[in-house]
Amino acid sequence: MKAFNDLADFSTDEIRALIALAGRLDAHPEPDALKGKVLSLLFLSPSLRTLASFQAAMTRLGGGSFVISPEMSIHGIESRPGIVMDGAAAEHIREAIPVIASYGDAIGIRAFAERKNLEHDMAEVEFHAMTDLIDTPYINMESAMNHPCQSLADWKTLDDLAIPANGGKFVLSWAYHPKALPLAVPAATLHMAAHRGMDVTVLRPEGFELPDQLMKKAAAAAEAAGGSITETDDRTAAMQDAHVIYAKSWSSTRHYGGRLADQKLREEHLDWCVDEPWFDNAKDDCRFMHCLPVRRGVVVADNILDGPRSVVIAEARNRMLAQMAVLHQMLGGSR
Amino acid sequence: MKAFNDLADFSTDEIRALIALAGRLDAHPEPDALKGKVLSLLFLSPSLRTLASFQAAMTRLGGGSFVISPEMSIHGIESRPGIVMDGAAAEHIREAIPVIASYGDAIGIRAFAERKNLEHDMAEVEFHAMTDLIDTPYINMESAMNHPCQSLADWKTLDDLAIPANGGKFVLSWAYHPKALPLAVPAATLHMAAHRGMDVTVLRPEGFELPDQLMKKAAAAAEAAGGSITETDDRTAAMQDAHVIYAKSWSSTRHYGGRLADQKLREEHLDWCVDEPWFDNAKDDCRFMHCLPVRRGVVVADNILDGPRSVVIAEARNRMLAQMAVLHQMLGGSR
Amino acid sequence: MKAFNDLADFSTDEIRALIALAGRLDAHPEPDALKGKVLSLLFLSPSLRTLASFQAAMTRLGGGSFVISPEMSIHGIESRPGIVMDGAAAEHIREAIPVIASYGDAIGIRAFAERKNLEHDMAEVEFHAMTDLIDTPYINMESAMNHPCQSLADWKTLDDLAIPANGGKFVLSWAYHPKALPLAVPAATLHMAAHRGMDVTVLRPEGFELPDQLMKKAAAAAEAAGGSITETDDRTAAMQDAHVIYAKSWSSTRHYGGRLADQKLREEHLDWCVDEPWFDNAKDDCRFMHCLPVRRGVVVADNILDGPRSVVIAEARNRMLAQMAVLHQMLGGSR
Repeated sequence: MKAFNDLADFSTDEIRALIALAGRLDAHPEPDALKGKVLSLLFLSPSLRTLASFQAAMTRLGGGSFVISPEMSIHGIESRPGIVMDGAAAEHIREAIPVIASYGDAIGIRAFAERKNLEHDMAEVEFHAMTDLIDTPYINMESAMNHPCQSLADWKTLDDLAIPANGGKFVLSWAYHPKALPLAVPAATLHMAAHRGMDVTVLRPEGFELPDQLMKKAAAAAEAAGGSITETDDRTAAMQDAHVIYAKSWSSTRHYGGRLADQKLREEHLDWCVDEPWFDNAKDDCRFMHCLPVRRGVVVADNILDGPRSVVIAEARNRMLAQMAVLHQMLGGSR
Repeated sequence: MKAFNDLADFSTDEIRALIALAGRLDAHPEPDALKGKVLSLLFLSPSLRTLASFQAAMTRLGGGSFVISPEMSIHGIESRPGIVMDGAAAEHIREAIPVIASYGDAIGIRAFAERKNLEHDMAEVEFHAMTDLIDTPYINMESAMNHPCQSLADWKTLDDLAIPANGGKFVLSWAYHPKALPLAVPAATLHMAAHRGMDVTVLRPEGFELPDQLMKKAAAAAEAAGGSITETDDRTAAMQDAHVIYAKSWSSTRHYGGRLADQKLREEHLDWCVDEPWFDNAKDDCRFMHCLPVRRGVVVADNILDGPRSVVIAEARNRMLAQMAVLHQMLGGSR
Repeated sequence: MKAFNDLADFSTDEIRALIALAGRLDAHPEPDALKGKVLSLLFLSPSLRTLASFQAAMTRLGGGSFVISPEMSIHGIESRPGIVMDGAAAEHIREAIPVIASYGDAIGIRAFAERKNLEHDMAEVEFHAMTDLIDTPYINMESAMNHPCQSLADWKTLDDLAIPANGGKFVLSWAYHPKALPLAVPAATLHMAAHRGMDVTVLRPEGFELPDQLMKKAAAAAEAAGGSITETDDRTAAMQDAHVIYAKSWSSTRHYGGRLADQKLREEHLDWCVDEPWFDNAKDDCRFMHCLPVRRGVVVADNILDGPRSVVIAEARNRMLAQMAVLHQMLGGSR
């Protein structure tokens, strides 16, 4: 495996093999699998779960990792091509990325979207500008429009809960949040559920439609896997017989990059906070998923997070196990 | 061992066994004992010795660790129960703690006292709010009123120096410091020396009495172990025949949480800086202990720290060894 | 090996043995060599390559490391001797250094020059004030006037490229940079190339002469090794038949510690940006070296960094390999 960049690059069989490996490594630790191997971790955006779970994953497999982030005492890093570097930044990614990668057997990179221009972010311009500089195997630890580690963990969580693939009803719901958040998690989650063969409903207010290109890619995956994609702002229709609601806030695609217009629109929907009445016509044991961090009382009510519907801690723990499987395959632990 | 939260939870025999294990691991390294095991380290308060020594301890036993602290590039963390999270903090401890714990085989947590209300801090409200959220074995890396790792290291240091348990005279002395510091170390130290069976004198100016509850708990421990507890502001009486003086500044309990009143009172005692004349009537080889960090020329004179009385570096190194013993027992290295 | 402080402390044979070991560890990993061993890493100055490569090096050899830097959530650290610590700093290096060292089997220390007084910096006052406090083996991770890890890596890079030792022509060139940078890298590089027996030319504008003491030390090393040292501001003469140009900016020695005078003088030399015309009379395959980080379009043109002359990424990777060799010898992996 040269890259773990997009779950869509992997067949259902390949994903099932990764999830089986994750389960095996949980049940039967392999503390010598990656002895002496190094994972470089570059965080250009904030992290808690990813930061912790990748370090823990490498330790559990007998290797190690190091973390670089701009908040540490390093030189400022420039990314614009062709620039005369007479300002604050002392180093360019054209040097920094190959150097950091050269110390590891693989590199994980996190860099959120710029969120100025949708096409630019959809093209993953910044992320590819970095990965194009290296031959080292790399892992997408969340880019402008993707978060494959989260999606692999979520797929495993759905399997662990025995939520049906074909025939399972998955609601991806927008939720209110005071800030305009990136599209990476909704994009990855939409495709993951489609890829798994589920009947997926995107539930969101007008103005928060997911980009066409993402919807079409997901629809093709759903069709291939025996599932379906629909989109609505009708909560009651969306939640009918749902097995799971995956809540996430994201920025308005209609006003992408327009902070004030986005804010005005999102503040019309303060009531999009997942609470027990949302589940009235769902399956009795309908689950609540979220990638975390989550704002209590804003995105979701406390009683949901603290009650039996919530599987958010299991999702987070599955991040570590899913990543262990990826690292095990990528770095030769499986040989 | 499910928790290492308070040295008072352990019998003298159990403590002696931990100290013996610490010594054995120093003499005979066991770099495979905790192979592939992970310690999660959560620092909600600053650290140097604890931060370094726990990481070193896990490496020496063949495992590893990861560090999370709010100064890193993570989302702000909220701890108030039931709050609507529409402010700066993006994550609640109710999610953060179980998630961080789920990546480790054990978790260490550091969170200093709020220092607004003494009863609140004595009840360890914040610390228990966190540990109540998890089933993972945990280690108190300094809470509002405790610091068991420091105390285990200090007990070992006293043993290393062959300072008598029964019959040994231990002076816990307040010292001047420009800030109102927490009670965690004096509370833990008082109980440690009492638990070890020593004759303990708390030497402090009026207004800096240690809380009644702590004194009573220590007196009971002293009685059970064949020692005693006294409290005085008379330096000469306190230091008579002392084997060791353990200096530490702490906030005024009389003005707990009242910054200005505390400051006014402490500035009447600028002369509480341990210096050679303090030792006039002590044992010739009376030792100086301090948990570090220590302010030179404020808490203690340079010549004491740089002379043969000081054992502060040995105490600090024993932090690592003591913690190796705790981790070894907690994580199954002893099986 | 008790210290790796200055490449000049090692004979050519000892250096060749370290480089051979670095190559062997690259080809044949030894993930058990330093099992359970700990390297303490203290960064009092910023770092990227050193921070990452030392952590990676220890992991590859089966050990581990921990990082302490003032930017982390630790107490402020005081270094002035004899001071009354009633200000912001809560800990003195007289305690901090021995404590941090006591957790490791070796310690790496980085502390840049003060750059107020040249004699003070040449005497490495701050660095020795720290290493004098410990018996632990230590590694200079860049001090006021030295950077032996960079020099060992650069020597290996020259060997890897089969650039001749005796008879090889090495140009150490000043370059423009908006800030007055330390002399550590030019000092170490000058001596390394001389020690390797090369014909070394220091190319710099007037006012940026390297200190006499460094030039004399390097001249003696060159003479012993069969090479030579010259100094000039004539680019054409300097580059004639050069095998390699090593670019680096440094502060004016004429105006050492005088910020405005230095700035005025350096701004007369904005054209000292290495570009293709510099190579007109050099060897056809003349290489470009730099320790990184490097400012594109300021110190060197993009087309040089992106073209076949540049070996900066190889130099950076050799940092890790060179340090693995040092650690292997220092910590007993070779026994």
